[in-house]
Amino acid sequence: MTPRLYIDAVLDAGSAIALGPEHTHYLRDVLRLGVGAPVHLFNGRDGEWRATITAASKRSLALQVEDRTRAPADEPDLWLCFAPVKKARLDFIAEKATELGVGRLQPVITQRTIVERVNLDRLRANAVEAAEQTERLTVPDVAPPLALAQLLATWPHERHLLVADETGGGRPVAAMLAALDAPARAAPWAVLTGPEGGFAPAELDMIGRLPMAHAVGLGPRILRADTAALAALAVWQAIVGDWQAVPRGRRSHETACMDT
Amino acid sequence: MTPRLYIDAVLDAGSAIALGPEHTHYLRDVLRLGVGAPVHLFNGRDGEWRATITAASKRSLALQVEDRTRAPADEPDLWLCFAPVKKARLDFIAEKATELGVGRLQPVITQRTIVERVNLDRLRANAVEAAEQTERLTVPDVAPPLALAQLLATWPHERHLLVADETGGGRPVAAMLAALDAPARAAPWAVLTGPEGGFAPAELDMIGRLPMAHAVGLGPRILRADTAALAALAVWQAIVGDWQAVPRGRRSHETACMDT
Repeated sequence: MTPRLYIDAVLDAGSAIALGPEHTHYLRDVLRLGVGAPVHLFNGRDGEWRATITAASKRSLALQVEDRTRAPADEPDLWLCFAPVKKARLDFIAEKATELGVGRLQPVITQRTIVERVNLDRLRANAVEAAEQTERLTVPDVAPPLALAQLLATWPHERHLLVADETGGGRPVAAMLAALDAPARAAPWAVLTGPEGGFAPAELDMIGRLPMAHAVGLGPRILRADTAALAALAVWQAIVGDWQAVPRGRRSHETACMDT
Repeated sequence: MTPRLYIDAVLDAGSAIALGPEHTHYLRDVLRLGVGAPVHLFNGRDGEWRATITAASKRSLALQVEDRTRAPADEPDLWLCFAPVKKARLDFIAEKATELGVGRLQPVITQRTIVERVNLDRLRANAVEAAEQTERLTVPDVAPPLALAQLLATWPHERHLLVADETGGGRPVAAMLAALDAPARAAPWAVLTGPEGGFAPAELDMIGRLPMAHAVGLGPRILRADTAALAALAVWQAIVGDWQAVPRGRRSHETACMDT
């Protein structure tokens, strides 16, 4: 297994990288790797690169970047705007949304949101870990929480918004997505999901006034907030996003060794 | 908030029900309910009924069943066949698959499955809890684990199988589902997902020999086993299952009070 790390450094053939304490601990103490071991690196901009551990001191591992294993590639421009929920389910949303290709995690405070304090560092750590494991070349941005009214007031006019409307007011999700015209399919998108208690009626009215909002239903069962977010993202990727292309083959060895 | 309980008893107007110790504890000690409080009951067969607490002894609460609040309704005939994974992610699969309307949870032991012991009681408890919260009228069956070869050898010939093939050998999932003819859409279905290491090549060959198997890809990113299961179920429900209908309205009060 070749470990895969996200680092905030320029990646280019021949660059030298000094790893920070967490990555050093992970490679040296957890994976027991030493000088000569290969590592894959990505920084969200320069694709993915192969590097080799060239020196190990007590505090840091030094790497030399060798060659590029994957070119930078566009990813769908998809945000997840979500009312924060309790801790384990919030970790879960960050992990799953990253696996499902989200470019921005945007917490939104709504009228019925119970959890108002969001640990952005923890959200970001979950996103980084999921990006490392999922072979993404980027890590989602983690934005500071916004009140719903503020989110809507500053909404980029070209970005379409799929709204998970649990009141039954929306169209079935697949029918709405399948009927989109080409400009709408090519536009930037976001998914918006509410708290466990759902959006308040006045909030749904306010959301519905956005010209690019599409209220949808996710079936006859009540979904928890985290399930609704994940399900909406998966259906969007399948019908509008990059799941429409024939998937590339896997690095079977890495897949087989992906830890849980 | 009216609590909603799954019980294994006949439900009919006027029936008397004596609750077991867990339900008694939950209603009396957790929710602090007493004589006169309403409760919703379902048993997987008779729809949903309103009942009232009529007596409270130290050990048990007695309920009288009053009137039916929802008639029994067909649910899509959809199984999830999945290689078991570690505990928290297994809990998650049971919960999410139940929310997503699965009728049977079938653990499958594959060549690269690391977790071979499955706690079926725990799986079932997670499914019951999710069914109670999700307003389902039924609880998924939890089947004992089967080896993959055994599952395939006894496969019901009319049941279609969506196989999450992470090697890149399958068609994009939405394209496959959207192209199904009417008999295939009306047929019973199952989703099959592998362990974190994926299926072995010989296993994929063996699965591919089932006449009703459809290998699909779930996009360019590596998904964890639990994410793949959930994503495939959501896309199936959206395109083929009961998410195609306009959703019915919610009991807004209950939704607002659904705990996390």
